[in-house]
Amino acid sequence: MAPMGDNVVVSNMKLERMLSMKGGKGESSYLNNSQAQAQHARSVLHLLRETLDGVRLIGAAEGPFVVADLGCSCGSNTIYMVEVIIKHITERYEAAPGFDPPEFSAFFSDLPSNDFNTLFQLLPPYGGDTMEQCLASDTHRSYFAAGVPGTFYRRLFPANYVDVFYSAFSLHWLSQVPDVVMDKRSKAYNRGRIFIQGANESTANAYKKQFQSDLGGFLRSRSKEIKTGGSMFLVCLGRTSSDPADQGGAGVLFGTHFQDAWNDLVHQGLISSEKRDSFNIPVYAPSLEDFKEVVEADGSFAINRLEVCRGGSPLVVSHPDDAAEVGRALANSCRSVSGVLVDAHIGDQLGDELFSRVASRAAAHAKDLLDQLQFFHIVASLSLP
Amino acid sequence: MAPMGDNVVVSNMKLERMLSMKGGKGESSYLNNSQAQAQHARSVLHLLRETLDGVRLIGAAEGPFVVADLGCSCGSNTIYMVEVIIKHITERYEAAPGFDPPEFSAFFSDLPSNDFNTLFQLLPPYGGDTMEQCLASDTHRSYFAAGVPGTFYRRLFPANYVDVFYSAFSLHWLSQVPDVVMDKRSKAYNRGRIFIQGANESTANAYKKQFQSDLGGFLRSRSKEIKTGGSMFLVCLGRTSSDPADQGGAGVLFGTHFQDAWNDLVHQGLISSEKRDSFNIPVYAPSLEDFKEVVEADGSFAINRLEVCRGGSPLVVSHPDDAAEVGRALANSCRSVSGVLVDAHIGDQLGDELFSRVASRAAAHAKDLLDQLQFFHIVASLSLP
Repeated sequence: MAPMGDNVVVSNMKLERMLSMKGGKGESSYLNNSQAQAQHARSVLHLLRETLDGVRLIGAAEGPFVVADLGCSCGSNTIYMVEVIIKHITERYEAAPGFDPPEFSAFFSDLPSNDFNTLFQLLPPYGGDTMEQCLASDTHRSYFAAGVPGTFYRRLFPANYVDVFYSAFSLHWLSQVPDVVMDKRSKAYNRGRIFIQGANESTANAYKKQFQSDLGGFLRSRSKEIKTGGSMFLVCLGRTSSDPADQGGAGVLFGTHFQDAWNDLVHQGLISSEKRDSFNIPVYAPSLEDFKEVVEADGSFAINRLEVCRGGSPLVVSHPDDAAEVGRALANSCRSVSGVLVDAHIGDQLGDELFSRVASRAAAHAKDLLDQLQFFHIVASLSLP
Repeated sequence: MAPMGDNVVVSNMKLERMLSMKGGKGESSYLNNSQAQAQHARSVLHLLRETLDGVRLIGAAEGPFVVADLGCSCGSNTIYMVEVIIKHITERYEAAPGFDPPEFSAFFSDLPSNDFNTLFQLLPPYGGDTMEQCLASDTHRSYFAAGVPGTFYRRLFPANYVDVFYSAFSLHWLSQVPDVVMDKRSKAYNRGRIFIQGANESTANAYKKQFQSDLGGFLRSRSKEIKTGGSMFLVCLGRTSSDPADQGGAGVLFGTHFQDAWNDLVHQGLISSEKRDSFNIPVYAPSLEDFKEVVEADGSFAINRLEVCRGGSPLVVSHPDDAAEVGRALANSCRSVSGVLVDAHIGDQLGDELFSRVASRAAAHAKDLLDQLQFFHIVASLSLP
């Protein structure tokens, strides 16, 4: 992505055209920094299976059984989870004699800026239709696959189309930084900060309102797309505090060393303070109450389960005593999810500078980081009433 | 793509994982070298419309109306054609009062190595579901869109799923170079050549057999995926000669200056003759008879229309008298479709060398080229009997 000049602020209008996890296969790519997400997804597999057990089994004549992962990104986690879902549903069909099982169709959806090329190259080739290919089924997939570019805050699929929606670690990404947070004349202007963590009440409320409006759009769209009898399983970052400005693990990730590294760039004169203040991470980790309020206000979905789960640390390190490794792990973890936005805002070179500061600052607090950086997740299982 | 050593032959098994038109937006990208394809597609629009007029209009309750472009590549041609199809079908619904029109769903399919990222960024955002977005419909699309990675010689979609299949300038790409063509012990070994053009009878028959087997797989797969009442419109390179070793326009494109440029590399000692001989362009421009035989042998589809059309030149030049421009146009045209294979076989640097020779050799015969390089296309309209 081309660096932009100091006066260029990334327009909110364009966030849905550019936001993505870091593509490719490099050290700070999402592909190589999503092991923690994989672990966290596995820790709630029993809840996913509970949801899948409640899904209505369609007959073969009703068309394919459709699974959609929303916010799939480009790593192998999405393929793993889609295959878990299809395997579980297949077992349910096998245990329901007399049922002619349908074909399976999987949709991998994310913003158009997602690295679908990397994802598509990780997908095993389809091998459902010949005996020879079935025998090689370890290396082939038994479902049809497609990628769907678009924002999940609007419609992505035709009406009455999807049996199982799955979305993990995506719904905390807002559709945009709230306009007032970037407006110098507003009380909600987020002066001195690049995230909601520790922000004033007006800023925090603006973030919260954006989350509520976004989740509302998500639910409205899905309620049209889901089949009667289908279900939706959602996992996103959450917080245990009632105060939106206390974002828990997300607050530690974006509100401490990352924040300090931005301040370093300002103090060294590498960027202006306005340049820093015009950057905001469009993330909001909701509380259980925040989430529940939106689902109830929308009214399309019944809540089968809604809880906050401890998700563990996003840092995957081989030697927890190696402070430098811990520092690098935090910087890579942070860059894999926010690097595309950072590079668009200050260019690749200053981006390198920023994240090397994140690494060294984090290394100096390695032990504290390993203790404090704990994610909580909202886990929701919803279906049409 | 990393260059490979002189002893590495690209395995046939991997062709479906790597073949693609040249991605990105550079001078020799497919995006910037597919204006001719656009013109040729437009020249058969009246035949496409005739096909669309025969498609059964489904009711809204039957789910979305599904259009699939097979071999879409990554340029804007595919988006243009899909929108032409949807517009035409929409007009048919408008002219059929009492019909509640369904939603539209478009699938863009190509091999997993296609540059879907570029394609997805060219797609306008979906804007069908709010009044505000409908008003901005010039910049939004009214259909759902998805990308489908995979080879069209096997299944890509669930059964009974697609209303209109469209495929342009793709079916002449074989699934692989026939094995015997690369086997030194075989009479079909294509010694001294990198294409079927001018090859011996055994080589030519091996290419023909591969085409027949591939098209057979294509028809078998589509016959399961197409809805009753749906139609398929296919355009691919064709030839007017009955001799498979006389490939017409494709023969001029791959069998003259491109062939000579490979020979130059051998004569200069830059590659061995075995290295050249182990490269073969997996393209076959069928005659009308070739094509018809396969459709009839498969038996799944009725032929509504099958003809050979003059398609014109693949070269788009501003100054036909500028020999250097004509040479560059030929090299870019050739590289945009074969460059990925060439680079994988001899590396980017020798690829640069090769195509600069194609350009200078073509420039020396610019006038002849403009006269002789004429494509013919097979145009087929098929539906279930």
